[in-house]
Amino acid sequence: MVRVKIIGAGGFGGVGMIELLQRHPMAKVAWLVDVENVGKPISDVQPHLRGICDMPILSPDQAPTEGVDAVVSATPDRVGMSHAAAHVKAGARVIDYSGDFRFRTPEIYADYARTIGLEPKHLAPELLPQSSYGLTELHREEIRKAKVVGNPGCFAVSIILGMGPAVKAKIIDLSRVIADSKTGASGAGKKPSATLHFPARYENMNAYKILKHQHRFEVETELSKLAGSPVQVVLTTQLVPLSRGIMSTLYGQLDAGWVNAKKIYEVYQAAYGRERFVRLMPLGEASSNAAVRGSNFCDVSIHVEERTGTLLVVSHIDNLVKGQAGSALQNLNVACGLEETAGLMFPGQFP
Amino acid sequence: MVRVKIIGAGGFGGVGMIELLQRHPMAKVAWLVDVENVGKPISDVQPHLRGICDMPILSPDQAPTEGVDAVVSATPDRVGMSHAAAHVKAGARVIDYSGDFRFRTPEIYADYARTIGLEPKHLAPELLPQSSYGLTELHREEIRKAKVVGNPGCFAVSIILGMGPAVKAKIIDLSRVIADSKTGASGAGKKPSATLHFPARYENMNAYKILKHQHRFEVETELSKLAGSPVQVVLTTQLVPLSRGIMSTLYGQLDAGWVNAKKIYEVYQAAYGRERFVRLMPLGEASSNAAVRGSNFCDVSIHVEERTGTLLVVSHIDNLVKGQAGSALQNLNVACGLEETAGLMFPGQFP
Amino acid sequence: MVRVKIIGAGGFGGVGMIELLQRHPMAKVAWLVDVENVGKPISDVQPHLRGICDMPILSPDQAPTEGVDAVVSATPDRVGMSHAAAHVKAGARVIDYSGDFRFRTPEIYADYARTIGLEPKHLAPELLPQSSYGLTELHREEIRKAKVVGNPGCFAVSIILGMGPAVKAKIIDLSRVIADSKTGASGAGKKPSATLHFPARYENMNAYKILKHQHRFEVETELSKLAGSPVQVVLTTQLVPLSRGIMSTLYGQLDAGWVNAKKIYEVYQAAYGRERFVRLMPLGEASSNAAVRGSNFCDVSIHVEERTGTLLVVSHIDNLVKGQAGSALQNLNVACGLEETAGLMFPGQFP
Amino acid sequence: MVRVKIIGAGGFGGVGMIELLQRHPMAKVAWLVDVENVGKPISDVQPHLRGICDMPILSPDQAPTEGVDAVVSATPDRVGMSHAAAHVKAGARVIDYSGDFRFRTPEIYADYARTIGLEPKHLAPELLPQSSYGLTELHREEIRKAKVVGNPGCFAVSIILGMGPAVKAKIIDLSRVIADSKTGASGAGKKPSATLHFPARYENMNAYKILKHQHRFEVETELSKLAGSPVQVVLTTQLVPLSRGIMSTLYGQLDAGWVNAKKIYEVYQAAYGRERFVRLMPLGEASSNAAVRGSNFCDVSIHVEERTGTLLVVSHIDNLVKGQAGSALQNLNVACGLEETAGLMFPGQFP
Repeated sequence: MVRVKIIGAGGFGGVGMIELLQRHPMAKVAWLVDVENVGKPISDVQPHLRGICDMPILSPDQAPTEGVDAVVSATPDRVGMSHAAAHVKAGARVIDYSGDFRFRTPEIYADYARTIGLEPKHLAPELLPQSSYGLTELHREEIRKAKVVGNPGCFAVSIILGMGPAVKAKIIDLSRVIADSKTGASGAGKKPSATLHFPARYENMNAYKILKHQHRFEVETELSKLAGSPVQVVLTTQLVPLSRGIMSTLYGQLDAGWVNAKKIYEVYQAAYGRERFVRLMPLGEASSNAAVRGSNFCDVSIHVEERTGTLLVVSHIDNLVKGQAGSALQNLNVACGLEETAGLMFPGQFP
Repeated sequence: MVRVKIIGAGGFGGVGMIELLQRHPMAKVAWLVDVENVGKPISDVQPHLRGICDMPILSPDQAPTEGVDAVVSATPDRVGMSHAAAHVKAGARVIDYSGDFRFRTPEIYADYARTIGLEPKHLAPELLPQSSYGLTELHREEIRKAKVVGNPGCFAVSIILGMGPAVKAKIIDLSRVIADSKTGASGAGKKPSATLHFPARYENMNAYKILKHQHRFEVETELSKLAGSPVQVVLTTQLVPLSRGIMSTLYGQLDAGWVNAKKIYEVYQAAYGRERFVRLMPLGEASSNAAVRGSNFCDVSIHVEERTGTLLVVSHIDNLVKGQAGSALQNLNVACGLEETAGLMFPGQFP
Repeated sequence: MVRVKIIGAGGFGGVGMIELLQRHPMAKVAWLVDVENVGKPISDVQPHLRGICDMPILSPDQAPTEGVDAVVSATPDRVGMSHAAAHVKAGARVIDYSGDFRFRTPEIYADYARTIGLEPKHLAPELLPQSSYGLTELHREEIRKAKVVGNPGCFAVSIILGMGPAVKAKIIDLSRVIADSKTGASGAGKKPSATLHFPARYENMNAYKILKHQHRFEVETELSKLAGSPVQVVLTTQLVPLSRGIMSTLYGQLDAGWVNAKKIYEVYQAAYGRERFVRLMPLGEASSNAAVRGSNFCDVSIHVEERTGTLLVVSHIDNLVKGQAGSALQNLNVACGLEETAGLMFPGQFP
Repeated sequence: MVRVKIIGAGGFGGVGMIELLQRHPMAKVAWLVDVENVGKPISDVQPHLRGICDMPILSPDQAPTEGVDAVVSATPDRVGMSHAAAHVKAGARVIDYSGDFRFRTPEIYADYARTIGLEPKHLAPELLPQSSYGLTELHREEIRKAKVVGNPGCFAVSIILGMGPAVKAKIIDLSRVIADSKTGASGAGKKPSATLHFPARYENMNAYKILKHQHRFEVETELSKLAGSPVQVVLTTQLVPLSRGIMSTLYGQLDAGWVNAKKIYEVYQAAYGRERFVRLMPLGEASSNAAVRGSNFCDVSIHVEERTGTLLVVSHIDNLVKGQAGSALQNLNVACGLEETAGLMFPGQFP
């Protein structure tokens, strides 16, 4: 059994991992770490776990560094980079949820960090060459060898999986991909705020961080890698009144020779035909949040408008599963040599 | 025009009054007072008011005491009692939203205050004899003469209007009336909290302050007055995932001679036949939150189970209108000599 | 008082007009017509109206054609065109909610009708030259003289108001405007369906009628009129789990000389500075559904991304007010010579 | 592997069983039967199952009767009784979701059937002595031997588990137990209706089938068995705007000697101390829908009001899991000799 240490266990991202590991055949929760509620059983903080997982929350100091097979750091920016080296040294693979390990050089990290007002100096630059961006579908082999995996941002997962094949095949104008992304409220985590106060959010929707969301940085980095040349993304992030789910509606201007849905469909089939967690909808059909909610699936549908030469892709994920803990477990499975789908091949519940 | 000064203008209760006064033919918002966001237009804080009401928020010191016809104090406990005397002295009628003026003697107030952990000493005991409990349907004449009106609690409105006639007619066991009340999240006001964080409240429901909600105090006080003898209420308050609305399901054990829906219906008709804001459903029909949401109506339906001798009353209100700002305006109208229904005789929007 | 006859009174669009007219100073509901529930009081069908409007529902035959000042035909396509001539002949102004009078020639109508599978022959072609597209902000003078007003589609209102000034000033690429529109479920009317069944819609969102929504037709027609040359719109319509509200996120490729937010802002200010129902957000701010819900406002914010040369406009309306009954009343006011804002200058309720 | 045949596979109850069996170690979906969508993969009808379960839907005639280990009949009243005998004869255990096998004699069944307007004649009376009411916690040994299990109604599960121990210990007045139950909309199944149309249900709540819900019948039957004397229940069923979840708030008049929370707590601990799916909250704490949603748990909290001598119990379940498919699987496990908790010992997802 792979022994997993979850840091940041009490937040949505940590709890999502605890939930998933309950039914994992080859990995198990071994230590729960958080800076709040230390000493309490996790089920006091998250009562749905009562009777399922009543392990105590340890402070960072109380939990061992040795003897850990995998660390899931469900923590904000700049936490993972402060402990990753010690865990790696002690033999663990580290999966970090933040932006700390999503970029391969200290320079790119510094650019990212400045964008969101963080200290630009990376605390573990020596780990960056041994790290991988954690979108398994793109970097499976790299992740297998990586010591640290930078789990992707939730919006990024939906956008990269949605537009990746088109960008890689260079069939759209790379200078302006439009990503109109809608997210449920859980993406902001468990801390209460005025904008997520129930009465203020009920029957509400709005765009936020307009053109400024930090996930654009990794989306452009990864799409540019795929294309082999720079890709620019216009990203509009929007809050809609649901708890879980991201729908990204993606627009690209097709090259003249590619205004043909069937040809594009073949490109996507080639990309995703063997992927277990990306479900390409049959041409002419679309998916929905209800189809992916609670699961590790990303549902992608493609649509072409001939008269305007537009490629339209709709991509759905559960932001807390494929957009967070599910991707993390998929990465953990790969990094630890387990079956990639272990503990993840299940549907959500409907309704 | 009656010039209204709203204290606590930026909270849900203050905003509700601003909204109502926009279309009032005889009263208008004259001053907006709050301790937060002083100097800003109210529409900066509540953007739905932009272009409708852009008046600046004044600090308590900036707003006049003289020249005010009515004060609406949409403030927490113990604020209204600190300024009411000055306003009354200057000639204004005061409508206070808190528990400060819901009881007629300093002794009863002290009991109430202790129950919820407040300082028991009333700061304006001399005003209590000149004040009235603000459920207009019960105390219309008193309110007409009162200097200060203690606007009722939201749960209290739904329960007292629902069970008042039965209690007054003494047709049920007064020692144990059961009030099972469900409320939307806006009842807790605009301050964010972990329990009202959108992801935590979505698809959630639970009982809270079980058997301990402070509104029980005024419910029992008023029902006992109606009955002329002590009434005891078992009150269960519950949060359901909507923004506006209270549904109280009320149970009483009928006296043997009263197990007869038609006879009881006549009692309720006698009580509410001429009331404009209490809508008694035809026997056999029920109402819904959608029917009262956004309006000042209280919809009451009565049901009798013969085999168990049970009177069941279902009472619906919008907690922010009939349960708060609407009742306050109804009281203001009466206290200031205006038509009771002025500015209030409208339906909500459906859907 | 303008006597209004509402046809299709029991649907969401008819009820919205009933609600609005309750507080209109110069117009009133005079007859309610529907083909269902004939003979019942409207408040039996829409219980929130109980005590406010209890008028009986008349069959089309029972209601007079003479003596009507204004007809609001809240009816599906091809109903309004069947009765408009008779009402116009008898002296009434007709406001029709459907696509029947949104186009000026039988030929354009035929194109539209074919697109959505309707009979292409217009039944009252002689009225088309006397009709106007009912977006008041664009066609105020025309509406003043029109016998019939074709009330606009809900998506169309949000898109045309959002992109109209940019298109008119020809500062963006007219061959491809992207409209990513999200709507609440009430836009589909009151008829139950599998996709709007509560459990299936809760925590759900999806794109539908992808690239095929019929409102695109009128959007392109009106934007092309404004530009004086053809405009093409890529329209993605999406359902999000709320009842009321449309948010349209609009993207245009800016001409090189116009990549400047302040210059664009001036264009929008010039367009909307004197409009009462279009609220242009200060540069750098955005609005939300909560700010417009329940009101006749359209909130527009503009944003520019310099590096990609993108104009981003976010436009919010309440689909049942500015997107339907509110626009209809605004048109009725203008057509009947009343103050344009009569009965409409109020905020929604928050929360 | 236990081979399970699911009849009524396309409804919420059938789908719930398909979801659960995906991760069951000892039982699997072998045949899916329905009368709609025959021939299509189940994942066409329920797209969240795509890639997980794509088995075709068979008509009742197409699926075998022989070779089936367990039949789950997720069907309306009077369907299960028409096929149960054949399946039992062929060696299968039958779990039926309807009222067909919830009563032990044809006479009691006839009473039940008449109450809800069904034909009173049972079609398989010979099976009734071999059947058991399917609340596992009450009838574990009986279910082990039963050929047919009548899976309980969702409200019934929450009420019987909530009040069972108090009734069995005879510490409350048995002539009038009050059950105030709130349910999400999924309890009504997947068929669209006016009352469950999203816009009509959003921010709505109401009581329905007031004092007439059919589950009262089995609640009284089972509680009376437990008490050994007749128990009467006042049942108010209410719809609140969520998809999944039942909260039953239960009131009993305590016998004078039992007005003591600790003593009652011991009674409940004795009843549930060894139950895996009933979680008794520590005295003074309550639970919530979020704690049970998606899981097979029933969370029970008890509260005592001394001055009125009231026992208040709050009971939470997921109506589609412990209230339906989860209980069915628990029964199937017991009836087929598997571990009772197999495939069921997992938490829901939060948020």
